[in-house]
Amino acid sequence: MIGEKKIQKLIQENSTKIVLIVMDGVGDTTDSSGMTALEQAKTPNLDRLASESETGLTIPVDRGITPGSGPAHLSLFGYDPFKHEIGRGVLEALGIGISLGPNDLAARANFATRSKKGIITDRRAGRIPTEENKRLVKKLNDRINSIDGVTVKVYPGKEHRFVVVFSGEGLSDNLADADPQQTGKKEKFVDALDEESQRAANITSGFIKNVQEVLRDEEKANSCLLRGLAKIPGIIKMDELFGLKTCALASYPMYKGLSRLVGMDIADGLETLDDELKELKKRYDDYDFFYFHVKKTDSYGEDGNREGKVKTIQEFDSMLGEVTALNPDVLCITADHSSPTDMKAHSWHPNPILIKGPYMRKTPGQKFTEKSCLSGSLGTFMAGDVMQLLLSQAGRLKKFGA
Amino acid sequence: MIGEKKIQKLIQENSTKIVLIVMDGVGDTTDSSGMTALEQAKTPNLDRLASESETGLTIPVDRGITPGSGPAHLSLFGYDPFKHEIGRGVLEALGIGISLGPNDLAARANFATRSKKGIITDRRAGRIPTEENKRLVKKLNDRINSIDGVTVKVYPGKEHRFVVVFSGEGLSDNLADADPQQTGKKEKFVDALDEESQRAANITSGFIKNVQEVLRDEEKANSCLLRGLAKIPGIIKMDELFGLKTCALASYPMYKGLSRLVGMDIADGLETLDDELKELKKRYDDYDFFYFHVKKTDSYGEDGNREGKVKTIQEFDSMLGEVTALNPDVLCITADHSSPTDMKAHSWHPNPILIKGPYMRKTPGQKFTEKSCLSGSLGTFMAGDVMQLLLSQAGRLKKFGA
Repeated sequence: MIGEKKIQKLIQENSTKIVLIVMDGVGDTTDSSGMTALEQAKTPNLDRLASESETGLTIPVDRGITPGSGPAHLSLFGYDPFKHEIGRGVLEALGIGISLGPNDLAARANFATRSKKGIITDRRAGRIPTEENKRLVKKLNDRINSIDGVTVKVYPGKEHRFVVVFSGEGLSDNLADADPQQTGKKEKFVDALDEESQRAANITSGFIKNVQEVLRDEEKANSCLLRGLAKIPGIIKMDELFGLKTCALASYPMYKGLSRLVGMDIADGLETLDDELKELKKRYDDYDFFYFHVKKTDSYGEDGNREGKVKTIQEFDSMLGEVTALNPDVLCITADHSSPTDMKAHSWHPNPILIKGPYMRKTPGQKFTEKSCLSGSLGTFMAGDVMQLLLSQAGRLKKFGA
Repeated sequence: MIGEKKIQKLIQENSTKIVLIVMDGVGDTTDSSGMTALEQAKTPNLDRLASESETGLTIPVDRGITPGSGPAHLSLFGYDPFKHEIGRGVLEALGIGISLGPNDLAARANFATRSKKGIITDRRAGRIPTEENKRLVKKLNDRINSIDGVTVKVYPGKEHRFVVVFSGEGLSDNLADADPQQTGKKEKFVDALDEESQRAANITSGFIKNVQEVLRDEEKANSCLLRGLAKIPGIIKMDELFGLKTCALASYPMYKGLSRLVGMDIADGLETLDDELKELKKRYDDYDFFYFHVKKTDSYGEDGNREGKVKTIQEFDSMLGEVTALNPDVLCITADHSSPTDMKAHSWHPNPILIKGPYMRKTPGQKFTEKSCLSGSLGTFMAGDVMQLLLSQAGRLKKFGA
């Protein structure tokens, strides 16, 4: 990755189209069968495409480092994930579909139980049911609208979790968590870590006091903790960085939110892979770059459901022909990170990748599996370099130097 | 690449010899035959050598980034090409065989057509023939010798292109192009981008006015544009950096110029591969490091002539025995970048490399092709690291730390 300033100087216009398909968490480890999910799945279409493509493996953010969805996607989109860290509060907000602007400060919050002496006796308020959470959030929204001119809005999550968004001018986010970390400790308010963030610290601490006032008669959820207070990072948009008109086809809020962060247009209302495919066809003429997200490979990975994961891969394989029929100039299929079913979690294992473009070193017989991609002509490389390869295949990068 | 300061500390003397052969642009993509040029060529000698060597692939400057000859060669010579950018004017001058010193400021220039009101009506003066260019350049050299104590010399290029070299003390090169970019726009003079460069801006702008005066009666070429104004970058010489007495064997001016930039001695008057080979033998005892350039693999690549490229590879193969007969301690054969015949241009695809030295992990059966080198013991790595490997094989690098 040569970096944003250098790549901008090399960008040249073209009318070519790039389709980047992210099979979330598709990579796996070999389980007791001795195979990965991609090896178990019957994927005649993926295999044919792989044999007509360049293949390889990508390291999500660094060797042995397991990435969250945020950094893993930023890498794939051509950004340095260590340079653009996305705060937890922001990710939580994106994850439940909240759209954040540059004046919004978001926080993850827990309902918590507080003793009269200000000791936090339960950091999760007894893991209250989600229905109870919704009732409490409504109560807060009815009673707390603004603090010192800053608009406050609360959104329910699952069980004891919720999200708060503070909207107003001049809120800096260099803030410590308001969380004693252990039960039985004195409650905490938000501390500013620099002078500029003092006003935000006062307002967010004021929010905690308002919550205690509004919920003073609740048995369990009579206070709250605030963590990961953050604003959206100032990321240069993909159209400005790469000269691409970009569109995201994704069904889950988190991925739509991440795409919005880098300036993609978002196709709303998509629920299934079929919806995404229809939208891809419908919008095909209007964009240079499509990000197409396949979520369920990751969901089944995190559930430890190998059968479900294999089935999802096969489902995707059966619709692949409709993507290739569009004949994009550059087609890339890869993952953001692995989600091995044995681990029931994200992992650091490299992602298989295939890139089909006009200028390739093909290796006949390649398949879209971890093992086969290991001997592909792209080798093993950093996911942050993927965009450079796609742009070059698309004739959208000038020569560096003469 | 550990960088110039760190590598200098590790250098140790030795009497070993290194020969670096650059088969310019030799790497290719698989064309309709399913093969690359190296796979099509019959190369018994290269193949035998590869099976006795370590092999791998190198990335010229970064994944997916297509380099010009300048940055690609700097990488191979062990320099960071992003740190030492070579200005366009300098490369253009090197390309037509002009030798530049530290007081020289070079510019690419176009003859252009200017209206009486100072509008550029043709940025290429109707692409005048090269013969006409020579006549105009002579006229300029006859009439413009110096400006404000700075010597000015003009050199013809092809069609409307020429090169100007300004020679004098204190010329800084932080200068904007004097080029309106579009026809129908007002002419531009050279602007200084910092205070230090003001004098150079005045002199180079003065040159444009002198040109307009001298050529005022010409029908088409009555003015000029200046672009890529630059001095040679202050690059530490290879002997100082690596402790090597170095010699370049190349026939084309650009490569001789690049070699001169890094302090190599230049063998002049070479025209063919045979000339280069004879000179290598003649000078073999006098140097530690030879850079041996094979140009035609690139020329045929850029022409889209696969047959010519294959033939050149075979020609080189047939003379390889005379190089290996010299029995250099370390022999490396690689490329600066790929020039696929399907692309008729430089590309970003990795370069095959073989290194034969005293201490190897050999892989029997290796060939000097893109595919075979993919499974070689060197793996795929940055071209900027090649010199580190050559120096180590040559016993010219100490252990780092204890």
